[in-house]
Amino acid sequence: MKFAYALSAFLLATITANAQTDSVYLRKIYDEELVNGKCYQNLHYLCKDIGQRISGSANAQKAVDWGKKLMESYGFDKVYLQEVMVPHWERGAKEQGLIIAGKSRIPVAICALGMSIATPANGITADVIELHSLKQLDSLGEAGIKGKIVFFNRPFDERFIEQGGAYGTAGDQRNLGPAAASKYGAAAVIVRSLTSALNDYPHTGATRYDKNYPAIPAAAISTIAANKLSDLIKNANGRPVQFFLKDNCRMLPDAVSYNVVGELTGTENAKQVITVGGHLDSWDLAEGAHDDGTGVMQSVEVLRIFKALGYKPKHSIRAVFFMNEENGGAGGKKYAEQAAANKEEHIAAIESDEGGFTPRGFSFERPSAGFLSNINNAWKKLLEPYEADMLVAGGSGSDIGPLRAMPGVTLIGFRPDSQRYFDIHHTPNDVFENVNKRELELGAASMASLIYLIDQHGLKFN
Amino acid sequence: MKFAYALSAFLLATITANAQTDSVYLRKIYDEELVNGKCYQNLHYLCKDIGQRISGSANAQKAVDWGKKLMESYGFDKVYLQEVMVPHWERGAKEQGLIIAGKSRIPVAICALGMSIATPANGITADVIELHSLKQLDSLGEAGIKGKIVFFNRPFDERFIEQGGAYGTAGDQRNLGPAAASKYGAAAVIVRSLTSALNDYPHTGATRYDKNYPAIPAAAISTIAANKLSDLIKNANGRPVQFFLKDNCRMLPDAVSYNVVGELTGTENAKQVITVGGHLDSWDLAEGAHDDGTGVMQSVEVLRIFKALGYKPKHSIRAVFFMNEENGGAGGKKYAEQAAANKEEHIAAIESDEGGFTPRGFSFERPSAGFLSNINNAWKKLLEPYEADMLVAGGSGSDIGPLRAMPGVTLIGFRPDSQRYFDIHHTPNDVFENVNKRELELGAASMASLIYLIDQHGLKFN
Repeated sequence: MKFAYALSAFLLATITANAQTDSVYLRKIYDEELVNGKCYQNLHYLCKDIGQRISGSANAQKAVDWGKKLMESYGFDKVYLQEVMVPHWERGAKEQGLIIAGKSRIPVAICALGMSIATPANGITADVIELHSLKQLDSLGEAGIKGKIVFFNRPFDERFIEQGGAYGTAGDQRNLGPAAASKYGAAAVIVRSLTSALNDYPHTGATRYDKNYPAIPAAAISTIAANKLSDLIKNANGRPVQFFLKDNCRMLPDAVSYNVVGELTGTENAKQVITVGGHLDSWDLAEGAHDDGTGVMQSVEVLRIFKALGYKPKHSIRAVFFMNEENGGAGGKKYAEQAAANKEEHIAAIESDEGGFTPRGFSFERPSAGFLSNINNAWKKLLEPYEADMLVAGGSGSDIGPLRAMPGVTLIGFRPDSQRYFDIHHTPNDVFENVNKRELELGAASMASLIYLIDQHGLKFN
Repeated sequence: MKFAYALSAFLLATITANAQTDSVYLRKIYDEELVNGKCYQNLHYLCKDIGQRISGSANAQKAVDWGKKLMESYGFDKVYLQEVMVPHWERGAKEQGLIIAGKSRIPVAICALGMSIATPANGITADVIELHSLKQLDSLGEAGIKGKIVFFNRPFDERFIEQGGAYGTAGDQRNLGPAAASKYGAAAVIVRSLTSALNDYPHTGATRYDKNYPAIPAAAISTIAANKLSDLIKNANGRPVQFFLKDNCRMLPDAVSYNVVGELTGTENAKQVITVGGHLDSWDLAEGAHDDGTGVMQSVEVLRIFKALGYKPKHSIRAVFFMNEENGGAGGKKYAEQAAANKEEHIAAIESDEGGFTPRGFSFERPSAGFLSNINNAWKKLLEPYEADMLVAGGSGSDIGPLRAMPGVTLIGFRPDSQRYFDIHHTPNDVFENVNKRELELGAASMASLIYLIDQHGLKFN
């Protein structure tokens, strides 16, 4: 006991001295970012001069070229591309959706889900059946489903405090609904947009077909239109309500694309890597501002801050612009493959892909029993002045997910405030104007702060 | 020691039992608000069907009448008005501002500061002198200032994490700058809008004249225009740059107006009051959505939640719509006077007047040494699941400020995230569309939660 006491007094003194140095350095990071930050103007370029950048598109290539030049302009130690094959899906001409109820034909806001096949050239018209879960398909069976347009209309559960939770529990309708409905012979699927917001933006997003059943056309419908359709079905007293759907998507051959990687090489442990990233590709409906222009611009900003402060990291710190998060995840897989092939040791990977909103903290994937209390004891106080001190268990990000197989890596998700993300996520409204400069910068500074702490002290909190 | 241990074990058991009940009740409060919340639709009415409601205006009276009816519709135990005389200032026709630099006459976005006098009918044209502090006036003296238009152009200090801090340190330019410049014979004052945002909205707000010196016209200029004016002054190499200012304000006689008060009367200690409020008046440029429509609608929502849950408070809980926060504070003073006259005992007052953004927590005015650690030990864990657990020292609100004189009262400020407030504060952009439904509701639920805890356990944390 005596020895333990002496040890912990020594540790406490060390921790206190560290904490003072650390707290001074974190303040430097924030000052640099809030006074000289560049991520907002970089995001402006990405959104306004490039715009949407769906995988395989000419714009995605422009974003790769520009991203590499941007990193080079900052004088990082290494800047390079990682070649990766990506799916190439195109939406084609604007979709059409009509509710046909009695003699009314009511145009409604829809958009094809990502990876959806097209309808026949003259569209599909069929009776609509409204469902609230995938399970209902099983109970209705082919007799109830065949030839119909399945309308999944389960709204967000508003009781979740964080919107990611509501998205998680409603998301099966979009991700898996079309495949599940096809099993019973549905003609097409329309899905209530995955959002709390009541407005007329349809929200796209990938759906995954099941190769054992035919692919069927799939579209999202705005929440206002979904409510209208549901009301019309209720008021029809059993008479069929029909829906007309026309979409014009196509799959092109896989395309060559790239992850963009920039590195500050470690001065003590160059082979040990801390990765910070987001995804460069976006959906095609808008500018991919919050999803995930903010994440990539914050990631490169972390390295820019360190360069500006003359910080020489112990470990190699990499900013990665991952390609193809939205409809395949090829970039994330490629990055992990290359890391394994090069026998790199990754100590941490941090992803920002939940929007560029005010930071709340970070979530740690599958932490061991002691990890969370230990990291909170060590670092929470340091992050508290910046209101980014929520250090909790939770998901990280889909691009860094494939690194999970690597021994010793800690996967971390940047956690911005979640309330507004799904209002604009995957919609025509995901534009630069909806990003707040200071919120974006505070996020970048909080990410730089956490990475500084990891670089200085490691993550030995188990 | 042994006794203390036994006591604290007993206390711990009590606290643990309480915490379980409390945590269940807080979850009920949130569920009620997130599923059945009414404050967003109420705010819509206030913003869109009534609109701006500056003190003394016909719209302010409409808001009073509607507010009282709204409270009556919820069946609170008492609903009443408190008569109060308020100043009645009118902006008049839209202001004109021109930069005159050489042969250029450049129209710029300005608006009169609240309580400003008008210029002469043909406006004021004078040389501009750019200053960054009130102190500079003293060093320049009458020789440097007399007859000129003083342009205060000190920007927000971006290093503050909370924007309220930056507002606080830049605010003297607007509050006191015109009076201070008048002392040295300035012709008029223009003030850089109090915001981090770079855009073309001028931000109004009250200025206070000094009765020992003449009142002079005072206006805010947008940050984009302020930068332009500053650049033109720099590039003029000492040649004078002039400014033309015309505003058309007037002071009318003081008007009769009202605070609106609703009460759930306490079942155990009816004479002990917990007040929750915001201010019903707004500036005249927009809808007073975040300033402070959100605050009043959240305050009445707290009582609505309690009614909906069938909660019978021990203490009397009052929602107060204060009148005239923006340019005088008459409503807040009246409420405190009445409370003193009626010999009421106020145990806590909570104000929401920093916007309807995602809640972060609450600030306690001038807490004693032990208060903060004790309240954090007791309640932080309960609020953590709702991410509204920042319990810190800080300001409360100007409407409840006059209650400070009352013995035993704790003044509390609701603390939403601060990053976006000053983008829209006092501008034509403070409209309903910039309020997020869930952020607003989460704020109302966090306020109801804190008030529930105070009602159950008091605030004996000293």
